[in-house]
Amino acid sequence: MSYAERMLHAYPDQSIANVEALAACIDACADCAQACTACADTCLCEREVQSLIRCIRLDLDCADICVATGAVLSRQTAFDASLARALLQACASACKVCGHECEMHAQHGMEHCRICAEACHRCEAACQEALTALAA
Amino acid sequence: MSYAERMLHAYPDQSIANVEALAACIDACADCAQACTACADTCLCEREVQSLIRCIRLDLDCADICVATGAVLSRQTAFDASLARALLQACASACKVCGHECEMHAQHGMEHCRICAEACHRCEAACQEALTALAA
Amino acid sequence: MSYAERMLHAYPDQSIANVEALAACIDACADCAQACTACADTCLCEREVQSLIRCIRLDLDCADICVATGAVLSRQTAFDASLARALLQACASACKVCGHECEMHAQHGMEHCRICAEACHRCEAACQEALTALAA
Amino acid sequence: MSYAERMLHAYPDQSIANVEALAACIDACADCAQACTACADTCLCEREVQSLIRCIRLDLDCADICVATGAVLSRQTAFDASLARALLQACASACKVCGHECEMHAQHGMEHCRICAEACHRCEAACQEALTALAA
Repeated sequence: MSYAERMLHAYPDQSIANVEALAACIDACADCAQACTACADTCLCEREVQSLIRCIRLDLDCADICVATGAVLSRQTAFDASLARALLQACASACKVCGHECEMHAQHGMEHCRICAEACHRCEAACQEALTALAA
Repeated sequence: MSYAERMLHAYPDQSIANVEALAACIDACADCAQACTACADTCLCEREVQSLIRCIRLDLDCADICVATGAVLSRQTAFDASLARALLQACASACKVCGHECEMHAQHGMEHCRICAEACHRCEAACQEALTALAA
Repeated sequence: MSYAERMLHAYPDQSIANVEALAACIDACADCAQACTACADTCLCEREVQSLIRCIRLDLDCADICVATGAVLSRQTAFDASLARALLQACASACKVCGHECEMHAQHGMEHCRICAEACHRCEAACQEALTALAA
Repeated sequence: MSYAERMLHAYPDQSIANVEALAACIDACADCAQACTACADTCLCEREVQSLIRCIRLDLDCADICVATGAVLSRQTAFDASLARALLQACASACKVCGHECEMHAQHGMEHCRICAEACHRCEAACQEALTALAA
């Protein structure tokens, strides 16, 4: 069990719905933030860095948004679902565009972009599942 | 001129539209992140902390989202307007709900909530103006 | 293998020393940031929140420092070891003091503090091991 | 008066020492984080991006550390001076190395590096003054 899931189970009032979807989304945000931060940096040391400018930029955006989203979802006290939804939509949007960009470079042999695209796609899906869970 | 405005003027291709609205939004995000971080902490040392739980929580969310939004807007290379719009909407939404909560406590004499509400309202307005500028 | 470890293995020049210690520290920072963010929030919904003020404050500090430390260590291009060491020392120091505070509340039955203390202690140890690896 | 200074004056117990040095440091951290984030991005759109790799990397590190340092100093409840000192030292070190790198590129006509070097030098000085104030 991840720390996110353990912490969600440790709330004193025990009434948190959708612990699995929330924990999965928090963990996917952390993974995606890490992969994007590292992908931006690895792009910087590629010989063809000029062709990776948009990738670096989207990596940095996606990392920042994932960090914020993971933190907001980690807070369950006085949870504001409409605020969480707006942020999850922005996060899913960032993961989608960044994952798509990375995928293009993965097809040209960039292994770090392949791994980062995977993290982005998983995080986008986890955001969508969290959105569904919050709407229920 | 703030650092945000000076940096936007220093882009080599000079073609950034809406420098004023962007710089104002970046600065408002930084101010709001600072005010929210400090308001959450000041709430913690109030005797009636129990009545400020929701305020603390929204302060922390709003600070995280403002930091991410300010960073994303500070990047103009390969700018993705639809990603920026989704994040600006989430940021405006966080500032609105946090500013409203702070305003209630300001009416009960909490000076830090009064200042924080002001920062939230300014940031919400600056996000709306940036959204308008991006749509133009 | 975590994303941190996979990304470190994907650097094109393959010459990164101490991948295991670095990846372990990056992962421990992410876990600790998550646990601290959630612990601060769970403290907020405890009836005895007044006795948890110092814990909340240290949780928030520790989370912020862990996020920064994980990001800096995730960047291996043009790595500056002395900057990394100064930050690792600050991070180890934050984890130590926060872990100690959480441990006290864990002894009074706070499950979230028990889990958070564990994450802090692991992160402190991982920072020390990364410091040793960087000095070698 | 900046939001940082106004918020420090709004603490209910009024007993915060060194408000000026603290507020100046919090503001300098916010300015430096902004300048570094924007400088990294502006470097990315320079034709000679290859010669700016170390600058981009240090900008990103410095921005992350400045954000964390500004947040930690913004919290005065249950303030832990030794934790703050360790972080201020890491921040001063990041500002110094990043400012020095930017200065070199400023001498080759990079206006964004000139502005960023200024923000780094001011933040380094503000960290040193906060360290002196905390030691008093």
